[in-house]
Amino acid sequence: MGTETVTLDEALALGKAVLKTAGAGEAVAQVMSGALVRAEAEGLKGVGLAHLETYADGLEAGRIDGNAEPTIERPTPAIFRVDAGGGVGHLGYDRAFDDFVQAARASGVAIFSQANSFTNGALDWFVWRLADAGLVGLAGTNGGPALLAASGATRPVFCTNPMAFAVPRESGSPLVIDQSSSATAFVNLRLAAGRGEAIPEGWALDADGQPTTDAARALSGVLLPFGGARGGNIALMVELLAAGLSGANWSLDAPSFIDGETTPGIGLFVLAIAPERVFGDGFAAHIDVYLDRLKSDYRVYVPGETRANAATDAQSGLQVDAALWARLQGRLG
Amino acid sequence: MGTETVTLDEALALGKAVLKTAGAGEAVAQVMSGALVRAEAEGLKGVGLAHLETYADGLEAGRIDGNAEPTIERPTPAIFRVDAGGGVGHLGYDRAFDDFVQAARASGVAIFSQANSFTNGALDWFVWRLADAGLVGLAGTNGGPALLAASGATRPVFCTNPMAFAVPRESGSPLVIDQSSSATAFVNLRLAAGRGEAIPEGWALDADGQPTTDAARALSGVLLPFGGARGGNIALMVELLAAGLSGANWSLDAPSFIDGETTPGIGLFVLAIAPERVFGDGFAAHIDVYLDRLKSDYRVYVPGETRANAATDAQSGLQVDAALWARLQGRLG
Repeated sequence: MGTETVTLDEALALGKAVLKTAGAGEAVAQVMSGALVRAEAEGLKGVGLAHLETYADGLEAGRIDGNAEPTIERPTPAIFRVDAGGGVGHLGYDRAFDDFVQAARASGVAIFSQANSFTNGALDWFVWRLADAGLVGLAGTNGGPALLAASGATRPVFCTNPMAFAVPRESGSPLVIDQSSSATAFVNLRLAAGRGEAIPEGWALDADGQPTTDAARALSGVLLPFGGARGGNIALMVELLAAGLSGANWSLDAPSFIDGETTPGIGLFVLAIAPERVFGDGFAAHIDVYLDRLKSDYRVYVPGETRANAATDAQSGLQVDAALWARLQGRLG
Repeated sequence: MGTETVTLDEALALGKAVLKTAGAGEAVAQVMSGALVRAEAEGLKGVGLAHLETYADGLEAGRIDGNAEPTIERPTPAIFRVDAGGGVGHLGYDRAFDDFVQAARASGVAIFSQANSFTNGALDWFVWRLADAGLVGLAGTNGGPALLAASGATRPVFCTNPMAFAVPRESGSPLVIDQSSSATAFVNLRLAAGRGEAIPEGWALDADGQPTTDAARALSGVLLPFGGARGGNIALMVELLAAGLSGANWSLDAPSFIDGETTPGIGLFVLAIAPERVFGDGFAAHIDVYLDRLKSDYRVYVPGETRANAATDAQSGLQVDAALWARLQGRLG
């Protein structure tokens, strides 16, 4: 497959135009093109411009209300309780963001809890913005319908239930963790099945609830959490924080984000901590000294650096799949 | 090995007397005997009465200051910044607890961040108390010196870095997750080596940084995180929340909790969320309906139930290892 070099501005402009054509209001098109192009620039192709097609399809089919206005309540100064109204999860977060940061700085800690949105794409966007503002961020989302077995279960109970965590650094980009609670992404089962390859043990069960290394059998079965019961507990925790606290649809009850006319209506949990209120001054420098030590003395992989470097490189041009780019242009009609 | 049946009151009284004899002040002996007997009653033998010996040894050697008075600052109403002063982590938490619960209810969310304590034992105690008061709790601690490799590292970087999470239920005991970030506990390497048994792949590296299934070689090597890089990220997150935000010793710098005269000086992070400020009324009932459904329709293992049932059974008598009980009695001298 060929690639095409485009500028970030071109990608943002095309993304925005595609989303507007599909039915997004100005604000939705603006925030979503930004988030999706950011993911593409970080090298996250599956949740970048290819995912923009998922959003455009969702807008056209009515799974996303492109003009939904999120309602933001603040039961206390530190709590943001948001109903996305069947729209994208990013708009309410973007609308609340400056107040959310101020609230975390004032109280030391704040929570953004949102129900009733479309799937949230690359979750790192939500916490990366906090760390960029000097805050520690922790997020989880149930994302969509059940694909993943819980501890003891042989049928899907959770979506891939990603969590993300970001910490500011004085020198350069924040530390950013962003990982699903599944041992692998569903798309990797499809890729292996397409190539006729076996999958590793621990990735999936078949339709009978038995462990399988046969990718085709896994496709009609269920994904497993990473790391056995401990990973299953992380998926459960994400479900309870994201869907439970917000009153969103449980993964078990969430309509598809690729079929039908109904919002998945899922949940998002974001915690923001102002380190100057806990550690005191100099937190970002303290973290820098530690992470530099981990890296130089112990060769520890510091999560987020690869993505940050890719995003920096993308400033001078983004390598985009040519067929995808042509499809996006074709959507302008 | 024989066991002895003792009442909870007998266990609490002996535990308290042993700790006082070893040098604990009244308040430390009271809170620690409660926490350790609770763990024993939950069936967590490794962090129950056997761990009480670790605390008594620590008090005698000076690794625990049995009369340290924790200092509790509140930079904002929602933030509790605590210095354990080289004592146990439980005392500051116990002293702050009622205010911490009130703060979470008032603000919707509150953080307890503590530095400079001894190892915190069974972490579920910290969040179970919150859930028992109707709050959602999330905790992490770096616990002690480095035993666990980080992503990319072949030498120890983190302690076992447990995290715990608890959610209130209307009917009965809270959901409680409590798990280390290691694939297994260090004691399991020792047990396997003693029996000459192989250990599973993914538990440990040898002293050369190579994967090993030889328990003896693993003992001189390093534990691995559960679930590969994702579990390593959980360990890193716990380290940054527990030691980073509190300014405690990093695991890399923590003195031993079983040797020497110096406090490990480690960190603890506890987040408390008041669900009535986020979800609204009826959260514990909402969770009950969901967990009952997971259990009955999907045979999901709900974490915390086994421990809660064991604790209930222990009301009518605790089965304690007879040799351990005799050793504890012997400490009264």
